[in-house]
Amino acid sequence: MTGEAAFIHALRAIATDPAARRLADDAAVLRIGGEALVLTMDTVVEGVHYLPDDPPQDVAWKLVAVNVSDLSAKGAAPIGCLYSHALGEAAWDTAFLAGLDEACRRFAIPLLGGDTVRMPEGAPRSFSLTALGTGPADCPVPSRTAALAGDLVWVSGTIGDAGLGLKAALGEVSGDAASIAALIARYRRPAPEPRLGVALAPLVHAMMDVSDGVLVDAARMAEASGVRIALEAQALPLSPALCAVAGRTPAARLAAMTAGDDYELLFTAPAEHTASLLDAAHALGAQVTHIGAVEVGAGLSLNDHGVPQPLPESLGYQH
Amino acid sequence: MTGEAAFIHALRAIATDPAARRLADDAAVLRIGGEALVLTMDTVVEGVHYLPDDPPQDVAWKLVAVNVSDLSAKGAAPIGCLYSHALGEAAWDTAFLAGLDEACRRFAIPLLGGDTVRMPEGAPRSFSLTALGTGPADCPVPSRTAALAGDLVWVSGTIGDAGLGLKAALGEVSGDAASIAALIARYRRPAPEPRLGVALAPLVHAMMDVSDGVLVDAARMAEASGVRIALEAQALPLSPALCAVAGRTPAARLAAMTAGDDYELLFTAPAEHTASLLDAAHALGAQVTHIGAVEVGAGLSLNDHGVPQPLPESLGYQH
Repeated sequence: MTGEAAFIHALRAIATDPAARRLADDAAVLRIGGEALVLTMDTVVEGVHYLPDDPPQDVAWKLVAVNVSDLSAKGAAPIGCLYSHALGEAAWDTAFLAGLDEACRRFAIPLLGGDTVRMPEGAPRSFSLTALGTGPADCPVPSRTAALAGDLVWVSGTIGDAGLGLKAALGEVSGDAASIAALIARYRRPAPEPRLGVALAPLVHAMMDVSDGVLVDAARMAEASGVRIALEAQALPLSPALCAVAGRTPAARLAAMTAGDDYELLFTAPAEHTASLLDAAHALGAQVTHIGAVEVGAGLSLNDHGVPQPLPESLGYQH
Repeated sequence: MTGEAAFIHALRAIATDPAARRLADDAAVLRIGGEALVLTMDTVVEGVHYLPDDPPQDVAWKLVAVNVSDLSAKGAAPIGCLYSHALGEAAWDTAFLAGLDEACRRFAIPLLGGDTVRMPEGAPRSFSLTALGTGPADCPVPSRTAALAGDLVWVSGTIGDAGLGLKAALGEVSGDAASIAALIARYRRPAPEPRLGVALAPLVHAMMDVSDGVLVDAARMAEASGVRIALEAQALPLSPALCAVAGRTPAARLAAMTAGDDYELLFTAPAEHTASLLDAAHALGAQVTHIGAVEVGAGLSLNDHGVPQPLPESLGYQH
């Protein structure tokens, strides 16, 4: 067990309230005044989650977006956030605030409070944000644990763009300017759509956000639900920009499935909900794609046009 | 304007939702499902808010306690918290968790979620905690802005112990062992009593917690409420431990009034609520003391046995 895994294990022994969902879901779910209050908190650290020369507006945007993605995965509509700011150079901080304001407006998540702290001279800074949302009124708040054998597996949007965008930002891949710009934008400015999570919630069994890679996140859902998830590589939704830069090869597809920072929704639903799912997505101008099935068993399997594929050594970003 | 003041000014321009209370109160107050949800977030930074050789259990305790103090000041009963942990040395982290668990139990505030992050090698760490509580059902959530001319001014507990405890921990003052231990305990393990805040809420006009010093916090309340607050130095409640170590001199009293980390409640109430306030406090084994009055005007005045006193250059800890 790594130090982090051991620590989280110890945390679970403390967080025994049912609202904590065993610290194994995207968010906590607290019942208050007849509402399901959905709560999530994410921290970004300079030199770990972002680089000192990343645009501060984008660092702030991403901090809001990753939390909104967690809310969306629980079918929750954002209602507000609190954030803690580590003061630094004034121009950087001002640009950060501009990005924060922009993201709060885009995701309709008002800033309600927080804290401002000074750091020791030269210390890397970190920023924490707590986001609150109200979960679905007429159905359970979707969890990672509710996938059922027989369900279809779906993903929203396109996969792998942000991971390739990071490589593009680092100058590790090249391609036409428009595609490169689109990929970098996906990396720097993830744009989860909470209205999609809200619309899907009554139709799904399990739902979570894809933040560390489709393969590793699907494996986590399978483990949490006590089922096997069988994915079809050829079904994976890839963007035109990704195909233009990386091609449509099996290797490109595998890279897309193991890349992080997608902030899309991974969910399972009974086959009879297919038409309703597609209607709900299309009504929002969103895309959802059927990429596999839930089976009796455990773990993950991957096929390409019906041919079983070996799983890569790393399924994605491991904490 | 300092950099921090300028930053907070810019934050206020973003946090325009009424629930944010202009970022000028102890907490945000959000209406949800007929309940008043009270939200606060505090961060502690190694080398700024605590020292690397402070007992980790106490660092964790204090992180919980300062947030609970904010809830208490809004008459809110704790319902849960989320916190973000910066991983470090395993034994330190384990001790920190033990203190966190102890504090969460003591204040009946279950841990619901949060985040765990790695830091760059050797970086100072920081810990953020978001606390949630439910505000009073049958009266407004007390704010800093509601003090009225004619109100009496009150404070809970005793004042100045933590500030003197810090000096004792640094070896800057000496005295009998029991008194020194009691003062250091007040510094390291503040013990706000949310049941007191809940009981007082229906009886008060303005309420806030005293975290930076009675004088500076009273001045903030006066400014927020558009009134003048007249404090009586001789009325200040001092603990036996403080008197044993620092004496009962005017200088000791002034030091107590400008010392931070009390985490007591400062509140104003109409004179006719005096008996009810005393009853409510005594029912919880708590002490509340009448220390002044709210007047028409602005700013702060200080008397000692009716003799006007000059205000010290620094009223307390200034952010």
